[in-house]
Amino acid sequence: MSEPTYVIGHRKPDTDTVCAALAYAELKRKRGEENVSTARAGDPNPETQFVLDYWDTEAPTLLEDAAGKQLVLVDHNEYSQTVSGAREAEIVEIVDHHRIGDVETSAPIPFRNEPVGSTATILVDLFDDADATIDAQTAGLLLSGLLSDTVVLRSPTTTERDRTVAERLADTAGVDIEEYGEELLAHKSKLGEKSPREMVLGDFKEFEFGSSRVGIGQVETVEPAVVLDRREAVLDAMDDVVSERGYDALLLLVTDLLKEESTALVAGDETATVEAGLDATFSDRAAFLPGVMSRKKQVVPPLETAFE
Amino acid sequence: MSEPTYVIGHRKPDTDTVCAALAYAELKRKRGEENVSTARAGDPNPETQFVLDYWDTEAPTLLEDAAGKQLVLVDHNEYSQTVSGAREAEIVEIVDHHRIGDVETSAPIPFRNEPVGSTATILVDLFDDADATIDAQTAGLLLSGLLSDTVVLRSPTTTERDRTVAERLADTAGVDIEEYGEELLAHKSKLGEKSPREMVLGDFKEFEFGSSRVGIGQVETVEPAVVLDRREAVLDAMDDVVSERGYDALLLLVTDLLKEESTALVAGDETATVEAGLDATFSDRAAFLPGVMSRKKQVVPPLETAFE
Ligand SMILES: [Mn+2]
Ligand SMILES: [Mn+2]
Repeated sequence: MSEPTYVIGHRKPDTDTVCAALAYAELKRKRGEENVSTARAGDPNPETQFVLDYWDTEAPTLLEDAAGKQLVLVDHNEYSQTVSGAREAEIVEIVDHHRIGDVETSAPIPFRNEPVGSTATILVDLFDDADATIDAQTAGLLLSGLLSDTVVLRSPTTTERDRTVAERLADTAGVDIEEYGEELLAHKSKLGEKSPREMVLGDFKEFEFGSSRVGIGQVETVEPAVVLDRREAVLDAMDDVVSERGYDALLLLVTDLLKEESTALVAGDETATVEAGLDATFSDRAAFLPGVMSRKKQVVPPLETAFE
Repeated sequence: MSEPTYVIGHRKPDTDTVCAALAYAELKRKRGEENVSTARAGDPNPETQFVLDYWDTEAPTLLEDAAGKQLVLVDHNEYSQTVSGAREAEIVEIVDHHRIGDVETSAPIPFRNEPVGSTATILVDLFDDADATIDAQTAGLLLSGLLSDTVVLRSPTTTERDRTVAERLADTAGVDIEEYGEELLAHKSKLGEKSPREMVLGDFKEFEFGSSRVGIGQVETVEPAVVLDRREAVLDAMDDVVSERGYDALLLLVTDLLKEESTALVAGDETATVEAGLDATFSDRAAFLPGVMSRKKQVVPPLETAFE
């Protein structure tokens, strides 16, 4: 059998990225596409591992180097977030819900990007388009991706379509959104067990804004104090990452899921630009961001504008 | 009323790009989106003017400078083909059927790209998704875009979906595909009346392949001799364009619609790279390309690979 086409999510995989890859590979097989594999660009986090166990599903295989392979990207469309070797791979399709990034192709390919709360939400449409049924297990995985990305429908990225789709998936999967969602959030991070470096890099994305390289980590938690009480150690870890990777700025969002607000910590030489972008003032390298829950929707766009 | 959102196609507009802009603006109004205008990034060619007259439709307004405006791009997704000012505009949506280009956005937007024969084909799906009816006039415009881009379903870019959609549109519009298609092709170009420069730049696209800038013009005709008999003058015009615009290579495809083959003329310093890409040998700056009908599918991908 020839080399398969790999359906794969972003580095530092989260639940939406892993579950979207699994579900889309499943749909492709139902549509009669043969030789499709699911892959991941890193290890599942504790929340994702809980989801895989709960729905009795094996994790996708780790793809160490994608060079020369055919890739279907889910949940991302920029090279700073792809598996290594992706620049030397052939990108044959993309399904995503983020900003349009820098991936270019030589030939026309299907690219479906929609401004909804999760890639899982879009996949439900693709199942419907193909008249394919979503079984309970797949519904459970898709629901997990949706609830994880939208913080159980509380994040400002949540759309009406996400809510409708979540209800339908919960129905098929046989779980209650709030109950299951709470279990999911409880696994989101065992923060107390993490090192400061793990706090910074656990859910981390790298961006190129014009000629600036900016890293943005996020800790979503019901106990922000666990991070903020170790602030000096976390800032040291951030400084280390900045000097290792040469970022112009590094931001860590410590997001309080219950109060729906974030505290941002900053490292790098571009604090003034970050302040301009976020319309916030850092004192002792921390700024309070009331109402900010979404890196993608509330932090990336203004920072990109400020850096360009 | 505030500034509208402009639905706009590529520079050097062709029939698909103009009709897609008209039809998508129409659909957006049907979906209840207010304050949507249709624009064009250049003057309609004779074929498009015939289509607009035939279906009793006004041409979109010419947009001279898009800076600061909101744009919905149809039928293109790279800056080398956008209306001027597009880099300073906000791109809020894209519907296309070409390779994925270099347009990036700060926020998530709807981007629907599918490897089918025309943007019109995708729009029919979007009408269906919205449960919106396609009236006879809109069907006529969409059919025109589809038949123009696929050379009346003969180009290798034509998919089964294009054929099915074309039959349905012809039905709604009340025309016969072959008869109407022949009329369309007859207006594609009044080649004999064109200057060599117009032959080169009439249907012209500019690409950035790695660090190289490459222009590719195409004349689709049933009488290739009208161009090839004036070969020296055409090559002179090509040389002029190369020195004015600093291209690394300029290719003119003279495509014989009946024999389904092309003759390529070349200018610029990179003939060896072009030869490698097309797997063809130029003698006296001309190469015969049997079976080549599609710039997008058969010429751009191998050239991009060769230049990178
Ligand atoms: Mn996601
Ligand atoms: Mn087109």
